[in-house]
Amino acid sequence: MPKLNLESIPQTNATGYPAPFDEEVAGRWYRRFAPAIGLSRFGASHVVLKSGAWSSQRHWHESEDELLVMIAGEAVLVENATDENEGRSILKPGDICAWPSGVENGHHLRNESHADCVFLVISGGERTGGAYSDIDMIFTADAYLHKDGTPYDARPVR
Amino acid sequence: MPKLNLESIPQTNATGYPAPFDEEVAGRWYRRFAPAIGLSRFGASHVVLKSGAWSSQRHWHESEDELLVMIAGEAVLVENATDENEGRSILKPGDICAWPSGVENGHHLRNESHADCVFLVISGGERTGGAYSDIDMIFTADAYLHKDGTPYDARPVR
Repeated sequence: MPKLNLESIPQTNATGYPAPFDEEVAGRWYRRFAPAIGLSRFGASHVVLKSGAWSSQRHWHESEDELLVMIAGEAVLVENATDENEGRSILKPGDICAWPSGVENGHHLRNESHADCVFLVISGGERTGGAYSDIDMIFTADAYLHKDGTPYDARPVR
Repeated sequence: MPKLNLESIPQTNATGYPAPFDEEVAGRWYRRFAPAIGLSRFGASHVVLKSGAWSSQRHWHESEDELLVMIAGEAVLVENATDENEGRSILKPGDICAWPSGVENGHHLRNESHADCVFLVISGGERTGGAYSDIDMIFTADAYLHKDGTPYDARPVR
């Protein structure tokens, strides 16, 4: 049956972020599709952000493309500020965002509303790493590091 | 700006299907994201099905995974019938379908409502080919063939 029964797919708010960067994503509840339903060509996650939660620390990927579609509720997309805007955009159901790999435009979603918001995010490519825009952290396939290369005592959840 | 302005992305109802198989998809209006916005790790299309239109002929892929999320309106998913159902399921906004590659479960969406329906579909993997379930046609990366291997005078739109 191709129509997914979301309830049957495990949901978690696990994160590998070192403290205190884990606090903002404690209200991020996600279901990863690839292991559960046999997809192997790209990754996909169904995410519920509780009021106040962030989708991640603001980040970008060296070698992974990301695509996001809002399903329910409202979120604020935060990205690099430009001359045209201050880096904040409201996302509503049906809105779609794309982040080609290698573009150093750190991005995340914040649920600043009082209700849950829900989105689907797809990623594809090699998980080689990337950087966080607002904190002293970068990531590789299997580690978090300070920007000077010193490792954190923490590992990405895979 | 990661939030996509859909209006800025070209929309088409082009199909390479030979007649008469093109008729059911004439009301399928789609935008392909990959060329327009720099995604290269997977394919993604935003699709509007007019009342009566089909998303494709009912098909499956040898080597491509597909993932679909309904954004607006209502569609009927048609797939192989099983003992449990007759192969028809209603899809509404927020519903998600996944088709792992190589599973010979021909599928498509039909808009049997009187309003547009809208979905996002992602595909990843190698476009090696597959088959259509209800008509005398198979496909390769660049051709449509009868099931006996005789080519149609028609080519997939890329």
